[in-house]
Amino acid sequence: MDKKFLICGGDLRQASVANRLYDYGYKVSVYGFSDTSQFNDKIQIHTSIDQALKDVDIIILPLPCTVDNEIVNMPMSAEKLYITDLLKKMNKNQIIVAGKISKKLYNIAQMYNIYMADYFEREELIVLNVIPTVEGALQIAMEETAITIHGSRCLVMGYGRIGKMLSKSLRDLGANVTVYARSLADLAWIKANALKGISTSQIKDVIAKQDIIINTIPAIVLDEEMLSMISPETLIIDLASKPGGVDFEKANKLGKKVIWALSLPGKVAPITAGEIISDTIINLIDELGV
Amino acid sequence: MDKKFLICGGDLRQASVANRLYDYGYKVSVYGFSDTSQFNDKIQIHTSIDQALKDVDIIILPLPCTVDNEIVNMPMSAEKLYITDLLKKMNKNQIIVAGKISKKLYNIAQMYNIYMADYFEREELIVLNVIPTVEGALQIAMEETAITIHGSRCLVMGYGRIGKMLSKSLRDLGANVTVYARSLADLAWIKANALKGISTSQIKDVIAKQDIIINTIPAIVLDEEMLSMISPETLIIDLASKPGGVDFEKANKLGKKVIWALSLPGKVAPITAGEIISDTIINLIDELGV
Amino acid sequence: MDKKFLICGGDLRQASVANRLYDYGYKVSVYGFSDTSQFNDKIQIHTSIDQALKDVDIIILPLPCTVDNEIVNMPMSAEKLYITDLLKKMNKNQIIVAGKISKKLYNIAQMYNIYMADYFEREELIVLNVIPTVEGALQIAMEETAITIHGSRCLVMGYGRIGKMLSKSLRDLGANVTVYARSLADLAWIKANALKGISTSQIKDVIAKQDIIINTIPAIVLDEEMLSMISPETLIIDLASKPGGVDFEKANKLGKKVIWALSLPGKVAPITAGEIISDTIINLIDELGV
Amino acid sequence: MDKKFLICGGDLRQASVANRLYDYGYKVSVYGFSDTSQFNDKIQIHTSIDQALKDVDIIILPLPCTVDNEIVNMPMSAEKLYITDLLKKMNKNQIIVAGKISKKLYNIAQMYNIYMADYFEREELIVLNVIPTVEGALQIAMEETAITIHGSRCLVMGYGRIGKMLSKSLRDLGANVTVYARSLADLAWIKANALKGISTSQIKDVIAKQDIIINTIPAIVLDEEMLSMISPETLIIDLASKPGGVDFEKANKLGKKVIWALSLPGKVAPITAGEIISDTIINLIDELGV
Repeated sequence: MDKKFLICGGDLRQASVANRLYDYGYKVSVYGFSDTSQFNDKIQIHTSIDQALKDVDIIILPLPCTVDNEIVNMPMSAEKLYITDLLKKMNKNQIIVAGKISKKLYNIAQMYNIYMADYFEREELIVLNVIPTVEGALQIAMEETAITIHGSRCLVMGYGRIGKMLSKSLRDLGANVTVYARSLADLAWIKANALKGISTSQIKDVIAKQDIIINTIPAIVLDEEMLSMISPETLIIDLASKPGGVDFEKANKLGKKVIWALSLPGKVAPITAGEIISDTIINLIDELGV
Repeated sequence: MDKKFLICGGDLRQASVANRLYDYGYKVSVYGFSDTSQFNDKIQIHTSIDQALKDVDIIILPLPCTVDNEIVNMPMSAEKLYITDLLKKMNKNQIIVAGKISKKLYNIAQMYNIYMADYFEREELIVLNVIPTVEGALQIAMEETAITIHGSRCLVMGYGRIGKMLSKSLRDLGANVTVYARSLADLAWIKANALKGISTSQIKDVIAKQDIIINTIPAIVLDEEMLSMISPETLIIDLASKPGGVDFEKANKLGKKVIWALSLPGKVAPITAGEIISDTIINLIDELGV
Repeated sequence: MDKKFLICGGDLRQASVANRLYDYGYKVSVYGFSDTSQFNDKIQIHTSIDQALKDVDIIILPLPCTVDNEIVNMPMSAEKLYITDLLKKMNKNQIIVAGKISKKLYNIAQMYNIYMADYFEREELIVLNVIPTVEGALQIAMEETAITIHGSRCLVMGYGRIGKMLSKSLRDLGANVTVYARSLADLAWIKANALKGISTSQIKDVIAKQDIIINTIPAIVLDEEMLSMISPETLIIDLASKPGGVDFEKANKLGKKVIWALSLPGKVAPITAGEIISDTIINLIDELGV
Repeated sequence: MDKKFLICGGDLRQASVANRLYDYGYKVSVYGFSDTSQFNDKIQIHTSIDQALKDVDIIILPLPCTVDNEIVNMPMSAEKLYITDLLKKMNKNQIIVAGKISKKLYNIAQMYNIYMADYFEREELIVLNVIPTVEGALQIAMEETAITIHGSRCLVMGYGRIGKMLSKSLRDLGANVTVYARSLADLAWIKANALKGISTSQIKDVIAKQDIIINTIPAIVLDEEMLSMISPETLIIDLASKPGGVDFEKANKLGKKVIWALSLPGKVAPITAGEIISDTIINLIDELGV
């Protein structure tokens, strides 16, 4: 509880991290925000990084901490903070806890003898981020259709972390949910959870009849052939990261309604997303024993 | 099945009514829409009311059928159709099925010897309209907060039709739900449904701690005293019709975040709302035996 | 809190009533139990009714309070207590609160100028009793079949208080639930609750395919014609009171597996049933203002 | 579909396996049952193992296939079938599919050049067996307490496959569920599933207040110290296999109410358990390509 945190850069999630750590009783200060109305009144706001770094133990960088490995991701400030500048100004007893640290960034930090830890790799954060991701997907489904989720035919593709919670929530709201999965173990879980599961051989029988299709599989499952079977009125939401699960070019050509919904936690529920990050940071600090 | 329907006026819900009746196998034509892209290609579109009235049995007016008891509610057309004109042009074998018929309108129709029936008074429509109302409330709660419903503290005021389904949906999404009700029987149902119920004497203990408050009671329950206890960060959604349950003037003065969410079915899910109307019309026609 | 209760006669539910009232801080004594191991140690046990009646305000009789209108229902004692004796020995400031008071019994009490109130008629008790009734039905379904409720086809007949909670619980456990109801409003609720509803015209299409049929309608719905369509392997549970919903004679002749499950709360969960009674008594006393 | 199965030995689950394979269209015969009333009329029943082995491809042994590695587990027959006899009489094109094959048994089979496959090791069977296990636990909880699960305080220990489904089912029935887990990832899932999770440091605060404690962790978690904190009225159900999670000797000495509930699927729902086995066998055969 005697740890002193500097929240440095980022968006509303970082404000939420600051407020929550403060509420937990930690000493918290902030750098990299021009509008400070989101912060608890008693949190100290710094405008000079040198001042900010005085007398703190842990510097919290946002998610992602940088997009170019050069400048700290600081969208709510007009200032620019070079990562190497930050590392240079830090002393050896200070550490950085950040989100999505690239291999290159780890190497840079090592050159400056600064320890960096990534909260975005921790299992509890990945699990808890499923919550705002699923709610974000529900919100999109509500906003982008003229029907209710209740009574609609929804196909969830994939039964990993997100597929599990999403299919449960859709069903709880009254949707007719079908879940596509490939492994027999996943199909057993789908059955155990009283959902209708289909395997690869059956997908063509159902894909044309869906009102909403939500993909969670990080591989192109909705290719040209599959897309061509989907009704133009069907809403397709792709939650899969990186390459995504939809061939977007083909989808555009075919006139399909596709929404690529990435990074939902920060967009639909930044406060909750920040709370998840702050709780994960506490676990991380706890395990480091710093 | 040999009934012929004229869908006359209204918004996207009426388009949905037309399409669904057509899908069920009825003969359907339409009057009062300048943009006809929402209709099934095979549905006949009329631009003259005289033409439209030829060879139809049942005229479907929208919800509400009129706002001034003079002109048919026809927001998607530049035309004006006077109700007395419509009544005059109808023959005695034709009937009108409409939503929200005022006492005055019933009297006018009687003068013209035209039978009118109101689908908006039917219990099955009132019940089924709970579905889009609840989803609309969830959508607002998602859109207007920076937190997830999951983990939030929600107070539902009233345990009638909407309160019942809303509190279940909020809980299914992971909210900490408290339900306020006055009658012992309602409180028994709240307990039976494994929710936390509170009665009038306890409301002051919980109202300050809520993230979201949703009122369904059609009487001013959130008066100045109650409003003053609510945090400025709490989102208040009022679903109660007519007078509403919130003293809006006071709420504005006190700087509370209130959303008066009326007529949600037509706004958030017009297709579903139209389907509910069309299914109710079929029941009504069935019972009339026309 | 200064009320003194005498718990008089009954089964384990009455012991539960005694213990709970004692836990709430009331003064409680007991008459009519030979085995007193179920009671809190500090509750006074009487063996003489004259002693028992000294210095008490409210006499609690069991559910039902009598089966013959002559003797207090006292199955856990070898003693016999005549109701007229009880009434005679009471003073005018004492009242009786009892379950299932017959018209005749009310009249007798009036002759002795003793006020009687019936907790079994109160809506909150009727609602809360749905909980142990539904769990009892689930328990029977689990015990009497060699299949899991999960994945089984269940037909719930009737969508009143019990039908509502039962169909939800069966579905939550993973059953394929169909609900039979006659009114359009009930069918609308069934749809709103995302269950499959059927009306009278459809029942013959589904009744032969069920693993479990649970009736809640208090009228012979399963007559000879219907019974003859039901598979001999189907478990039929009748929860309807008095005449019941199954023609038992015909069911026996046809070799159907029927369980008439009455008064489940006292059988499957006497402690919970007693708690429901005691909480209802407190409401009743509260309203009486005695 | 042209495979011929011999169902050999076992209990009602094997009868269910036979009936289901027959329903799927396979050729099925049976050996090792003196009472054959459980079988479909058209399934051939053998009383001689030599006859039985003629013209079959796959021999299905029960779960477990043997308890002593010598004799086939054949509780519903007075006959004895030595495994070595069975292996000797088989030809090389025949294979055995069995449940819980010991290392020793695999070796014996190899000596006879007979291929054996174990369906009990397959993930889909392990997952689907969670269903009858959870229902069995609920049934025990209902039978062994005088309260309803609804409203009761339940502690589920462990959040693996069984813990996940069990805690959901208890909550769906209206229980106040607390889940004990050790890993941060499990605690994150517990939170995501809107349940109350506790870690090791908190267990002592809650264990004394529970009505029902259900253990799923296969290690002694309820040792003398923990047991001594549990109320004598608390029902403890241990679902953990092999060593179990309760120190039974100490529990007996301390007078705690413990039920060691093993192998529930075969006990509470043999037909469902058999269906799970038969479906798994089909997957297995499919993958073997025999």
